Amino acid sequence: MHVLITGAAGMIGRKLTERLVTDRGLCGQGVEKLTLIDIVAPARPPGFSDHVKTRAADLAEPGVAEKAIAERPEVIFHLAGVVSGEAELDFDKGYRVNLDGGRNLLEAIRKAGDGYKPKVVFSSSMAVYGAPFPHAIPDEFNLTPLTSYGTQKAIIELMLADYTRRGILQGTGIRLPSIVVRPGKPNKAASGFFSGIIREPLAGVDAVLPVSDSVVHTHASPRSAVGFLIHGAELPREKIEPHINITMPGVCCTVGEQIEALRRVAGDKVAQRIRRQPDPLIVRIVDGWPQRLAGERATALGFSVEQTFDEIIRVHIDEDLGGKFAA
Amino acid sequence: MHVLITGAAGMIGRKLTERLVTDRGLCGQGVEKLTLIDIVAPARPPGFSDHVKTRAADLAEPGVAEKAIAERPEVIFHLAGVVSGEAELDFDKGYRVNLDGGRNLLEAIRKAGDGYKPKVVFSSSMAVYGAPFPHAIPDEFNLTPLTSYGTQKAIIELMLADYTRRGILQGTGIRLPSIVVRPGKPNKAASGFFSGIIREPLAGVDAVLPVSDSVVHTHASPRSAVGFLIHGAELPREKIEPHINITMPGVCCTVGEQIEALRRVAGDKVAQRIRRQPDPLIVRIVDGWPQRLAGERATALGFSVEQTFDEIIRVHIDEDLGGKFAA
Repeated sequence: MHVLITGAAGMIGRKLTERLVTDRGLCGQGVEKLTLIDIVAPARPPGFSDHVKTRAADLAEPGVAEKAIAERPEVIFHLAGVVSGEAELDFDKGYRVNLDGGRNLLEAIRKAGDGYKPKVVFSSSMAVYGAPFPHAIPDEFNLTPLTSYGTQKAIIELMLADYTRRGILQGTGIRLPSIVVRPGKPNKAASGFFSGIIREPLAGVDAVLPVSDSVVHTHASPRSAVGFLIHGAELPREKIEPHINITMPGVCCTVGEQIEALRRVAGDKVAQRIRRQPDPLIVRIVDGWPQRLAGERATALGFSVEQTFDEIIRVHIDEDLGGKFAA
Repeated sequence: MHVLITGAAGMIGRKLTERLVTDRGLCGQGVEKLTLIDIVAPARPPGFSDHVKTRAADLAEPGVAEKAIAERPEVIFHLAGVVSGEAELDFDKGYRVNLDGGRNLLEAIRKAGDGYKPKVVFSSSMAVYGAPFPHAIPDEFNLTPLTSYGTQKAIIELMLADYTRRGILQGTGIRLPSIVVRPGKPNKAASGFFSGIIREPLAGVDAVLPVSDSVVHTHASPRSAVGFLIHGAELPREKIEPHINITMPGVCCTVGEQIEALRRVAGDKVAQRIRRQPDPLIVRIVDGWPQRLAGERATALGFSVEQTFDEIIRVHIDEDLGGKFAA
């Protein structure tokens, strides 16, 4: 089986690649060929002796999507895109990459003209939702995004569903909750603190908490995100069509509960490295975000996620820190 | 005030033009200038002595949208589009006209670069919804269209909301229920019978009913549709932003209740001109359509519609038949 990953150099893309290399299979078949593309050439995965192509490719450029599918990958994970903050700051870039790039990929598949009908798993986001919200967002909830990023994700979801309904491809839209703990350096995303208040203290560094302890959000680990994408590719089509865009489950908790979990997993000293320093801009942005995702349909479909925030922290310690942290 | 209507040659476009010519005002200002565009040049409205431009224009062609807004109309009614059946039969045409044409209009406004920020009233459709449905579709209901037409309408709604949120324009999306009674010849739309079973008997002609009497649907007259669009332009912005796409109210009734209304308004002899002849294809298509729209938000916002199907029939007799019918 040949698998194409767009956005393969990103955090989820790299972890998905590692998982496919480890599993060496997908949908009950062996994975013999990987094509990894991103705006910068992704790293070659170590330990994969079969055929791998890595390439810098911008799907928004003419002809690039056609080239990406030229060898007819059976499964495509479409993760490419610019993130929320960047799509909001740069209108043209957001629509170009997230909308035109995604549409170009769908159109290249439609125009293949040789019976090609791949599985296309798309990483969408709970940013397709916009306030005001009920206590928990049900699967039937309206799409009223309040960012350009959420708008672009919702548009590709709609097209993916229509192309699926028309028999052009087999789409699955995976609406991700907030993915924590993101490894690496802090970034400027407004949501960065959800990872930062766990990652930095575990590395022995102070972290700033810019919102109140009572903020509620829904989280899943990067490992769960990869699991969602793989399960999305493997689900029998009759279980999800025609409503192929699915809101994932997650651990719904307050920031205060996140911090208590950190204290349980890593001790008082680590949890005390969090400094409370409210930032009115971040408070306002976070106020408009979805809080609790019900994710009932996804759970019934077998998508699984951590049960507690403690587990999410342990995944980070295990997967990104080699089991050790600065106590 | 300068008003641009796209799709001005269509049924709603013509009736909206007539209404603006009669009222000679919109949003509390006089209407001195009308620009009417469509894929074929719309007719000049009789009785309007001020400045009118009518022009054949395809918004999906490069440069056409820029030209359409060159004189900076303060209010734009964007009605242009291919209908449901055509968008389903011709994939390329549907996306080209309904998505690219609409996006070109929004982009031309964004790129004006001179502080231009018009009101843009977009005629959307309850086709943005897809089965399964609750008893009545609430305002918070998910968007899962089951046609390419509904997909394209939902995408333009999302973009209109994002462009509004970013201060580029002042958008209002008007999700229309089924508009009956459509004057003129029967067409091949699967929904055509909803008008046909009223229009043809009133004209002394037999009509075919291809579905069962128990089918439920939500209707509004063309007069109400025009009223929705005008009210959508006149509503204070703070009442609708940021959720600018609004599901209209309508008369929810069964086909049997439609026929009883026809009997009350026009007599037994007219109602007996309906022949029941089930068509499995139409039965199947209609099965997937929204039945009851709750329309609570629209009602609270002052959008008004007929209270009974009797009134909808009387609007047709009054507006399209000069008050007379074949008893």
